[in-house]
Amino acid sequence: MSNEPTNFADRLIAAARAKESCVMVGLDPRLKQIPTHVQDSARKRVGSTVEGVARCILEFNRRIIDAVADFSVAVKPQIAFYEPYGAAGIQAFSETIQHAREAGLLVIADAKRNDIGSTAEAYAAAYLGTTPLWDGAEFSAFAADALTVNAYLGSDGVRPFVETAKANGKGLFVLVKTSNKSSGELQDLRVHDTRRQSPEAIFERLGGMVKQWGAELVGEGGYSSVGAVVGATFPEQAKALREMLPGVPFLVPGYGAQGATAADVAWCFDAAGLGAIVNSSRGIIFAYEQDAYAERYGEAKFAEAAAAAAKQMRDEINEALASR
Amino acid sequence: MSNEPTNFADRLIAAARAKESCVMVGLDPRLKQIPTHVQDSARKRVGSTVEGVARCILEFNRRIIDAVADFSVAVKPQIAFYEPYGAAGIQAFSETIQHAREAGLLVIADAKRNDIGSTAEAYAAAYLGTTPLWDGAEFSAFAADALTVNAYLGSDGVRPFVETAKANGKGLFVLVKTSNKSSGELQDLRVHDTRRQSPEAIFERLGGMVKQWGAELVGEGGYSSVGAVVGATFPEQAKALREMLPGVPFLVPGYGAQGATAADVAWCFDAAGLGAIVNSSRGIIFAYEQDAYAERYGEAKFAEAAAAAAKQMRDEINEALASR
Repeated sequence: MSNEPTNFADRLIAAARAKESCVMVGLDPRLKQIPTHVQDSARKRVGSTVEGVARCILEFNRRIIDAVADFSVAVKPQIAFYEPYGAAGIQAFSETIQHAREAGLLVIADAKRNDIGSTAEAYAAAYLGTTPLWDGAEFSAFAADALTVNAYLGSDGVRPFVETAKANGKGLFVLVKTSNKSSGELQDLRVHDTRRQSPEAIFERLGGMVKQWGAELVGEGGYSSVGAVVGATFPEQAKALREMLPGVPFLVPGYGAQGATAADVAWCFDAAGLGAIVNSSRGIIFAYEQDAYAERYGEAKFAEAAAAAAKQMRDEINEALASR
Repeated sequence: MSNEPTNFADRLIAAARAKESCVMVGLDPRLKQIPTHVQDSARKRVGSTVEGVARCILEFNRRIIDAVADFSVAVKPQIAFYEPYGAAGIQAFSETIQHAREAGLLVIADAKRNDIGSTAEAYAAAYLGTTPLWDGAEFSAFAADALTVNAYLGSDGVRPFVETAKANGKGLFVLVKTSNKSSGELQDLRVHDTRRQSPEAIFERLGGMVKQWGAELVGEGGYSSVGAVVGATFPEQAKALREMLPGVPFLVPGYGAQGATAADVAWCFDAAGLGAIVNSSRGIIFAYEQDAYAERYGEAKFAEAAAAAAKQMRDEINEALASR
């Protein structure tokens, strides 16, 4: 490893330019939807155990990663789908990250971690750094390039992550305006201010804090390694945030299965077509189940179906960006 | 297991009455502070590896759990201190929970998890339920009694946890007003309302939502299994929340090392001295390092020091409650 790690935001821009893609593939491996032959193979070799299920998930992920690597810049393993399998699941999560990095993909660990002080430092070390063992040895649990973080605790809950990211050339994406229906219950509340006709929303206040937190991590490309999660399902808010936060990269969920279109996500990009990575999970990894891909590929060619879906998503978004 | 699980809040009240204690011991096993002889023993038997460190942590926890079981109602393992050791750390986390339950303690998994839909369901299954494997088998990754949850995503991000808790007699503690210095940056912002002289704060709005989320999980003792995290370091806010949220149990961090006193935490209890569990982590598990315990117990008797510290905390809070 180099002693001077490249800035994460710069690595993201370089990958987006090289691949002409902003696609991120969400690795949410729901066991029931993994093709039968992948399940049977793991069960036969490892056993009908939790270790067998974890191996099945890892092998599914490896096939998906290899298939989508040409059309996507990053993968986003969602740790919630690995924790239910305990230590075996966490091992599969760790090895999935390794495989994705070996395939030349950036890895955003979607864990939405949050805590304060030395507790947050421990999380940051797990995902973005290393942890001392004995005799001077250091252990890297999950060698991700970036981590999603929930900032309800305020600056105390974010700075330890920022420090670790800064030290190691890694990145963060802080939840700002999420893609789910009820996200407005807290995020859209307006901050009391009798002097203003239209006071700022909580998500706008938080967006401003994200910009501050990332001020020392701005790379040569003008973007910071401290980004924001901004759902494409609320295009008006996304547009407002993009204008408000130049230089803050957006991680954009909500495309495809959650209903956002290529035109919706286009608001999250800057004039040069940079500044955002767009996630699709089910829509890509389980594309083989969709009408559009089922006949041509089917279960046997699930990885090819994922590749085709990733390529199509890349092209659709690139077209939407070109026609703005 | 019984087919009709007892309500978590009722189990909490029963434990508090039986032990005349509201003490919760935070299991934050920082390796550097674990006594040398415990480290040496694990290193010798397991090896100077990540598995050796994980075993060291588990053995430290077991000793602490056995020592404090008479004086405390619950333990709160903080998963951030286990994740840096990857799969081995997660195995130690899981076995720590098992050991605490066998010792008759309730277990609050402090993971501050947050996500939506089927992702939140997967987290809930990991901590508060079971996950299907193959051939009808079900796997329980972390058999906790309750889980801490961050609600920035709104109702979509909490209901899946509530449903799993309800189905399994488990509980939740939603972050409402946290104990850290910067908690006010978002939590204390007031919601815009020109009709009110003193509009409600975000944490009050969220408190009201917590009450609603838990309405169907109220036990025979009048408390809900959906509780709130309310830091004792802000006694005025804690007092306001206690008045506003009868029937919502509080998980109270901030005692001891973070600066809150027994008088501060007393505001979190109802008139009967129920309705709150108070956490101390470092102040108990590493009591052997403190002046008050170092001479009498020292490193060799670290577990006895933890027991003495837990007993003293129990007595101090009981006295503060009795003298109100």
